[in-house]
Amino acid sequence: MSNTPLYMEIYLDILEKIRNGFYLENSPIASERELCLSYHVSRSTIRQAMSLLYKNGYVYTVQGRGTYVKPHIFEQPLYKFYSFTDELKKNNMDICNSIISCEIIKLDAHLSSILNRPKEDLFHKIVRLRTVENSPLMIESTYLPKNRFFRIEKSLLENGSLYTYLKSNYSLNVDRALETFKPILPKQWQAELLNISTKTPCMLLERFSYEDDELIEYTHSIVRGDKYVFKVNLSN
Amino acid sequence: MSNTPLYMEIYLDILEKIRNGFYLENSPIASERELCLSYHVSRSTIRQAMSLLYKNGYVYTVQGRGTYVKPHIFEQPLYKFYSFTDELKKNNMDICNSIISCEIIKLDAHLSSILNRPKEDLFHKIVRLRTVENSPLMIESTYLPKNRFFRIEKSLLENGSLYTYLKSNYSLNVDRALETFKPILPKQWQAELLNISTKTPCMLLERFSYEDDELIEYTHSIVRGDKYVFKVNLSN
Repeated sequence: MSNTPLYMEIYLDILEKIRNGFYLENSPIASERELCLSYHVSRSTIRQAMSLLYKNGYVYTVQGRGTYVKPHIFEQPLYKFYSFTDELKKNNMDICNSIISCEIIKLDAHLSSILNRPKEDLFHKIVRLRTVENSPLMIESTYLPKNRFFRIEKSLLENGSLYTYLKSNYSLNVDRALETFKPILPKQWQAELLNISTKTPCMLLERFSYEDDELIEYTHSIVRGDKYVFKVNLSN
Repeated sequence: MSNTPLYMEIYLDILEKIRNGFYLENSPIASERELCLSYHVSRSTIRQAMSLLYKNGYVYTVQGRGTYVKPHIFEQPLYKFYSFTDELKKNNMDICNSIISCEIIKLDAHLSSILNRPKEDLFHKIVRLRTVENSPLMIESTYLPKNRFFRIEKSLLENGSLYTYLKSNYSLNVDRALETFKPILPKQWQAELLNISTKTPCMLLERFSYEDDELIEYTHSIVRGDKYVFKVNLSN
């Protein structure tokens, strides 16, 4: 016989059902009565399991309506240079980067002024949809100068970090990056890819990375505002 | 006779008209022809003035439609503890804090869990609308524990920094603060105060300030997304 208390087994089973999407975010979990029947246990055992789910931040209750699955909100601390892929993998998150497009472009007037590079300069433009635990989280458009990175192996980006790839293939060494944050509403195509409405506010995150004081990467990301919170520690 | 070149006098005159709201943000500036007539100068003098306004970031051009007033976007670097009032005053901005409300409240369940303080604890709640150069920029709701700050002199907050006030009256010494950023849409009353539509995305900025590891301030701000950009430098 297992040493795990019964309520803990039920807790783990419901947690698994939240994780695999059987119970969806912001949707109700079966009632206490239904859970008693399906697990063949007493109401107090169910209450113990639910109370642990609540304590650990997996569910919330709505007065008079029951218990709901809490959406998972990702927190990104901003203090040193980070890679989304590495940060999420650190938390054992299942991450998938679908490449929407990967092409070589000539800088137009707008990009040329943002990047402070001559018009017509050749850059790689890589657009990726980043999905974590089956939830689309952000659309990233990355611009990399072709004269520094000759060729980008598209297939190697699908599961790994772009920085790791550029580090091992081109000895990229980012010294520092500047990030700017601005709230926006997504465009229709962005909302569709992110599986949200065009009324869900998103964060427009722009990153300018430098290597030896040369701009080496510009990334324009649309990050779902309902799934991501950015944090910064300010010292005095 | 003045030593200032003619084009510079016109530049300064138009700049003053942008600053005092004669020319509104995103509105067109009179055409070259109209400006020639009103200043009694040649087209090339007007072009020199306009070109300087463009170079210094005060105007933008729309192909085939003319020259428009560029909205002023504030940039807030995030690295050390800052005060909006002080930051804006540093840039010679005219800032006004209207006090929307100033009262003593008992923490409800929600605030008690955010602040990690017992329910019913007494806090000052100060709601301020912060207006810079005649543009409303943000609504700040600040919560301060009453047991640390016995009395808040409302009238002293209208033009100065809250931190300066608390420093000089209560020897407040903030060690560090945590800020979180999340894009949101404003509620009706917030949009009305900020003079924007409820479809203009805003930044929800939350600040938790600590003194000797005690939470000493919590501020919930709704910042206009069309007027403010937050910046962070990431080192590697």
